[in-house]
Amino acid sequence: MHLLVTNDDGIHAAGLQALARSLRSLGEVTVLAPDRNWSASGHVKTMHRPLRVREVELPDGSPALCSDGAPSDCVALALLGLLKRPIDMVVSGINPYANLGHDVTYSGTVTAAMEAVIHGLPGIAVSLDTPEGHSGPRDYSAAAEVAAAIARRVAEDGLPRGVVLNVNVPYGARESMRGVAVTRQGLRVYRDELVRREDPRGRPYYWIGGESPSGLSEPDTDFWALREKYVSITPLQLDLTAAEQLPMLRQWAETI
Amino acid sequence: MHLLVTNDDGIHAAGLQALARSLRSLGEVTVLAPDRNWSASGHVKTMHRPLRVREVELPDGSPALCSDGAPSDCVALALLGLLKRPIDMVVSGINPYANLGHDVTYSGTVTAAMEAVIHGLPGIAVSLDTPEGHSGPRDYSAAAEVAAAIARRVAEDGLPRGVVLNVNVPYGARESMRGVAVTRQGLRVYRDELVRREDPRGRPYYWIGGESPSGLSEPDTDFWALREKYVSITPLQLDLTAAEQLPMLRQWAETI
Repeated sequence: MHLLVTNDDGIHAAGLQALARSLRSLGEVTVLAPDRNWSASGHVKTMHRPLRVREVELPDGSPALCSDGAPSDCVALALLGLLKRPIDMVVSGINPYANLGHDVTYSGTVTAAMEAVIHGLPGIAVSLDTPEGHSGPRDYSAAAEVAAAIARRVAEDGLPRGVVLNVNVPYGARESMRGVAVTRQGLRVYRDELVRREDPRGRPYYWIGGESPSGLSEPDTDFWALREKYVSITPLQLDLTAAEQLPMLRQWAETI
Repeated sequence: MHLLVTNDDGIHAAGLQALARSLRSLGEVTVLAPDRNWSASGHVKTMHRPLRVREVELPDGSPALCSDGAPSDCVALALLGLLKRPIDMVVSGINPYANLGHDVTYSGTVTAAMEAVIHGLPGIAVSLDTPEGHSGPRDYSAAAEVAAAIARRVAEDGLPRGVVLNVNVPYGARESMRGVAVTRQGLRVYRDELVRREDPRGRPYYWIGGESPSGLSEPDTDFWALREKYVSITPLQLDLTAAEQLPMLRQWAETI
């Protein structure tokens, strides 16, 4: 078993190191992650410039690789033949914040796992639901243990083709968690607002600001699971077709 | 009817101007597009830096706005209150290449339309299936006409909530098209490969290269429609949950 570990916060992130260390209980682990933070950069594939890969050391002294590409580039590099031994599974994270609801379409953590699935391998994205206002270093140890337990399950029994596991882990000790819930993607209530400011020369500029979005905690959603202190596992698919709408839209389109 | 037109190729793209001109037959059109090319940048929301907005003129002399944000930022700026009159619909494009299969997760054109749907408005992404090897300026006029016809249909009857229309138009005169097909997202066969080169100092760098991906032309897919010279309309949803897999995965997860 050869696992690839990557993330979107960059090679120096504590969550990456905790994940790599924990997954070594399953087999060989190669870390290949971006050399900088790509948070909220979405699904990026770099084809207009060449990519560099460097050997580095994680803070705990273990060897790793970093690249100047995006998270999905790191996965593509590894799966297209950069490494000597083929990869069996890709795990990305541990993201320092939860990736829930519509946010998954912005998430480099999730899209790195999607890139694995596009290449026909299992892909798991792992995020930690750090409470708002948390200060100081985060404790990734429980989330890293959970990630290894899920990856072990995937190694044993595989996953349905085309499915990415989006895993969100409650903050706290593993004993405080109530178990694992397989969930669906919840709905965010966005409360973004436009904040207009003026620079010292009187020219306007804009921040996309506002309160953090809140999740509708309908039963069985990712939001609900975290609120109830379950580990949330949401299976995501790459096929975005709104299949239920096809018959209605076919009628609708007849008059175009 | 107040339409917002944006794209991911930037304010100077010919496809943007053609789309804006054509949609003026439906009502007021505001153009707000990125000041540079964001192709293959995926879904990006800029919250770590402020955004600037400038008034510019399109090559045909019509007024427009451009921003230093990504395509989805342009949509967010417009919908969060930058403009005096509220927006009723967002149309993004015309992308100079088709957005098919898994590529939609990379596409700034599609994610701009998704941002509209997240805000509760209809969103339409329009792309032109320019043949490989095409040289010289593209003719966007037929695709712009088709986009206006679809937008008019959406203005009359609306769209199901949460659905983005991903429209791909065959290249050529409108008379050469066989009509409109409502399709599902096809599967790409990726043929990416890693190309290793060395710089003048002997250090390696890598290109993600290989042949263009080809689409499996299963009936009713976006690839199939274009090959058969239909306009392809694929309804996409924001909920990525692999709902059919939930019962099986719930059993699967019991032993984690």
